[in-house]
Amino acid sequence: MKRLMCVPNVSEGRNRDTIARLTAVLTEDPHITLIDASSDPDHHRSVFAYLGEAESVLAATERLAEEVFRLLDMTDHTGSHPRQGALDVVPFVPLGSTTMEEAVHVAHEFGRFIGARGVPVYYYENAATRPERVSLVDVRKGEYESLAEKLKDPAWAPDEGPAVFNSAIGSVQVAARLPLVAFNVNLRTDDLAIAERIARAVRCRDGGYRYVRAMGVRLTDSGMVQVSMNLTNYLRTPPHRVLGTIRSEAARDGVTVASTEFVGPVPAAMLEEAVRHYFQAPDFRSQQIMEIDR
Amino acid sequence: MKRLMCVPNVSEGRNRDTIARLTAVLTEDPHITLIDASSDPDHHRSVFAYLGEAESVLAATERLAEEVFRLLDMTDHTGSHPRQGALDVVPFVPLGSTTMEEAVHVAHEFGRFIGARGVPVYYYENAATRPERVSLVDVRKGEYESLAEKLKDPAWAPDEGPAVFNSAIGSVQVAARLPLVAFNVNLRTDDLAIAERIARAVRCRDGGYRYVRAMGVRLTDSGMVQVSMNLTNYLRTPPHRVLGTIRSEAARDGVTVASTEFVGPVPAAMLEEAVRHYFQAPDFRSQQIMEIDR
Repeated sequence: MKRLMCVPNVSEGRNRDTIARLTAVLTEDPHITLIDASSDPDHHRSVFAYLGEAESVLAATERLAEEVFRLLDMTDHTGSHPRQGALDVVPFVPLGSTTMEEAVHVAHEFGRFIGARGVPVYYYENAATRPERVSLVDVRKGEYESLAEKLKDPAWAPDEGPAVFNSAIGSVQVAARLPLVAFNVNLRTDDLAIAERIARAVRCRDGGYRYVRAMGVRLTDSGMVQVSMNLTNYLRTPPHRVLGTIRSEAARDGVTVASTEFVGPVPAAMLEEAVRHYFQAPDFRSQQIMEIDR
Repeated sequence: MKRLMCVPNVSEGRNRDTIARLTAVLTEDPHITLIDASSDPDHHRSVFAYLGEAESVLAATERLAEEVFRLLDMTDHTGSHPRQGALDVVPFVPLGSTTMEEAVHVAHEFGRFIGARGVPVYYYENAATRPERVSLVDVRKGEYESLAEKLKDPAWAPDEGPAVFNSAIGSVQVAARLPLVAFNVNLRTDDLAIAERIARAVRCRDGGYRYVRAMGVRLTDSGMVQVSMNLTNYLRTPPHRVLGTIRSEAARDGVTVASTEFVGPVPAAMLEEAVRHYFQAPDFRSQQIMEIDR
């Protein structure tokens, strides 16, 4: 049983009816398990996460793509999150004994399905066909607004589908990648400079942990600030270690951690390591976890 | 889907061939998932834990019982763990949305199956038929060696099966109960008195936490001592809180916690609460855990 997770990001975070229709494609499918669905009106974006056997996940994602193409129109899309298409990113994540190669195989199969519908596809991360397309930041540079021009450049010939700009759909970015952990730490202060300083202290770019991307963000509702992070390799840079550093850095300014949040799915192996750390329980195995009530 | 866990304890912890045959009954059953199997020669006892749909778990447990009755003979049984029969205890644990009533129903169905084979059965915990049989300690008082006498006492008439002593099998104790968390804390000292003092500090009997049973134990291999615990309600007395108290009590004697261990299965809800505590992540839900590779 080759099991996969898929975490598509769709450029619709406001229209409740549209979001409900997209969600229904996934909830009504008995062959997959939807483990997360969240929409952000500021980002104008929805993120879904579901798992199952490779063929079932592929089939569900194809149906989701068809529904996205039927319902969305990017023409007037505005939002604070970078995006290049209606079905903006479609990462396939290997689970359990599934290899990255197998996840890449499914990503390419999905890409060919999209290309055959006349929509340009870019592969990134482990599914990338060339080094300059590995990073999503590079692939999405210029975003939707530059896509028509980009498609005329031979260097940006799509990996699948025609080099033709479709204003309603844009392009689809398809990946195979390790699970990414979205981990946010809320600080009991309204001083954004403190969150920004701590983000620099922990992120790779400025000398922090190898697998941390971070930025300081203001939380308008609570009047606090947040260190918003992506951990791109939770095995080598685990969240409990980063949290320890953030607590220590915050204390330097007399600030405490108010709370933290894991956004979306987290790998069982990450929790296993956190239990080993906090309980000093070196032999704990995630297989000991009895049953999760989904 | 009514899902259950069953955690039978069998009075055989030394004969590898017998243990392998019993384990095979469970591993060869495609309808259940064996999540733990451990044998202790000192205790002369093996513990299995498996889960599945209620009917599958019941059927597997019936087959296990038949194999135990076929292979074991209690006549010369010695071991440091209390026991009253070859298939000593058979607790059924409700999982997910399964209610305790449903678990009790399965426990009684299993009890009737055993009774019909001419073996006396006592129900305990939530499956008990009278208050004085709720506690396993009470039900098992006098153990296997007193069972022949006990069966002559009308107050100890079995709940199922005849009041007849079978020297090879003894009696079977059947329960429905909440998951029980076995949690041990190893201290970096060889002073048993310290482990015993801390056990008293945390256990209910002596003024500690309501749902903790604890004792101090010497670890012969490592030269350390251990606070060995059962948490009988992990929701109201969570292990992270008890560990905090033990760290503080040990510090009083200048002793540190060397390591801890969870023996056997742990409930997902327990880990959820531990993540909320250690990461200060109040909204974390166990459903966010991606996939456990069994």
